[in-house]
Amino acid sequence: MYFILELLGTVAFAISGTMVGVQAHMDMLGTTVLGLTTAVGGGVIRDLLIGVTPPAAFQQPVYALVAIAVSLIVFIPPIRKRINTNAMILILIDAVGLGVFTVTGVKSGITFTNPFLQIFLGVVTGVGGGVLRDMFAMQKPAIFVRHFYAIASLIGAAVCYFLLSVNDNAAMIAGISVIVVLRILAAAFKWHLPKT
Amino acid sequence: MYFILELLGTVAFAISGTMVGVQAHMDMLGTTVLGLTTAVGGGVIRDLLIGVTPPAAFQQPVYALVAIAVSLIVFIPPIRKRINTNAMILILIDAVGLGVFTVTGVKSGITFTNPFLQIFLGVVTGVGGGVLRDMFAMQKPAIFVRHFYAIASLIGAAVCYFLLSVNDNAAMIAGISVIVVLRILAAAFKWHLPKT
Amino acid sequence: MYFILELLGTVAFAISGTMVGVQAHMDMLGTTVLGLTTAVGGGVIRDLLIGVTPPAAFQQPVYALVAIAVSLIVFIPPIRKRINTNAMILILIDAVGLGVFTVTGVKSGITFTNPFLQIFLGVVTGVGGGVLRDMFAMQKPAIFVRHFYAIASLIGAAVCYFLLSVNDNAAMIAGISVIVVLRILAAAFKWHLPKT
Repeated sequence: MYFILELLGTVAFAISGTMVGVQAHMDMLGTTVLGLTTAVGGGVIRDLLIGVTPPAAFQQPVYALVAIAVSLIVFIPPIRKRINTNAMILILIDAVGLGVFTVTGVKSGITFTNPFLQIFLGVVTGVGGGVLRDMFAMQKPAIFVRHFYAIASLIGAAVCYFLLSVNDNAAMIAGISVIVVLRILAAAFKWHLPKT
Repeated sequence: MYFILELLGTVAFAISGTMVGVQAHMDMLGTTVLGLTTAVGGGVIRDLLIGVTPPAAFQQPVYALVAIAVSLIVFIPPIRKRINTNAMILILIDAVGLGVFTVTGVKSGITFTNPFLQIFLGVVTGVGGGVLRDMFAMQKPAIFVRHFYAIASLIGAAVCYFLLSVNDNAAMIAGISVIVVLRILAAAFKWHLPKT
Repeated sequence: MYFILELLGTVAFAISGTMVGVQAHMDMLGTTVLGLTTAVGGGVIRDLLIGVTPPAAFQQPVYALVAIAVSLIVFIPPIRKRINTNAMILILIDAVGLGVFTVTGVKSGITFTNPFLQIFLGVVTGVGGGVLRDMFAMQKPAIFVRHFYAIASLIGAAVCYFLLSVNDNAAMIAGISVIVVLRILAAAFKWHLPKT
């Protein structure tokens, strides 16, 4: 079940990365690297921060291979022209991906018993791939400019962390649920943080 | 004493990062991430290069938490509008930060007995956060374009490294002093490297 | 012999990085950092991914020092004005560099017996420095936009990987040769991937 949710998130993140590459007029290699980076980049940064080398994305390449396959399919012109990145179904599976990746990140830091680190690892796992995607495409990272996106991940990571001492499964389900709900509400009501 | 100098540097770097984020029209999350990144990013890169995981910034989160608090305060409109990043007081504490972070970096590589590495670690610790800040804001890193800034760090790192064999404290004080003096002179007289 | 090929590649990559810095109107520090980054950046990323700290570029600083020296020389105005980055001789030694760095990367991952990882490490070692160079210069990474460059590295990495089980030297020679030939053909006939 958890594996299926992770795969869903991988697919959503790969589509998002590929579409940013298409909008930036990249070639098929560029869009595929952006799809791959968006899907596995957050986990790779997290693993480098906690000393897991080679990062899990390489040790279990199934997610990377799915991301590459999805990116190549999405690049096909008749398919890419039909993808609307604001469609509710894409926002929903992206929200699931953000939730699952965030709680995976919180749990991966668990041996360090340091709330600041564990919550940070959760957010980095959730949003780090998207930041790399935007930097490769020479755009200001979207989460720094106009989205409530990373805050949903942050709140869910904190909820997950504080429930971990109670019950492992409850912490993960609560963390994912909070993120999915907040991310969808934020998209529906165009929530954003104070701007400059 | 050293701790107070490090905190001063953290505050100066966090202000610098937040102001770059404000100028780049980021929201409150973006400016805070830029403040945090400028303050602790150099140390995180250094730690990844020498295999210290999780990086010290996470193991002793006091600097990160100070940077986040400063960034949130600086974001408040009436406060941010009064900050002049060219004010002499900001340049002075930024110079102290550059000096302290650089010598910390030189010493962190000390078990490797490799002058190239140790001096490089000093410079990366001093200027790496600012490079990440500029890249997140989609600006060419300031130190690559128009500043003597990194050269002050480089000279101070070399002075510190070569005095370490004589006396630990003397090396640190000399390194910091050289950097503070050079950085202030560079700002006052607009020193710069040959341009293209 | 291999050492000489690696030095040739280092020189070509340092020239390429310095020239991108010159075109981006950087100062002497910026162009030198770009030359250094292009030459050793791919290897540093590879080493961080497989947990080699400090990265080999610091443990054997000869390549880094050569890259710095070349970058400083290329910066001298009468010299830099005569360099034509499309000259056949530069494309040839750049192709050798791409080939040598890629097979070095494939072999560095060899203890992991994971084809996805090993081929990825080869490509990252070959093209990672150029991606960092472009990001420092605030340009979309060239390999994502218009070049067959990374595909030459990818094909050569795969050839090298699959021949490693047969014969070590044959694998390296075949991998380098494939990359050199493909990269030169791609430049001569302006091969590119499907664009958007």
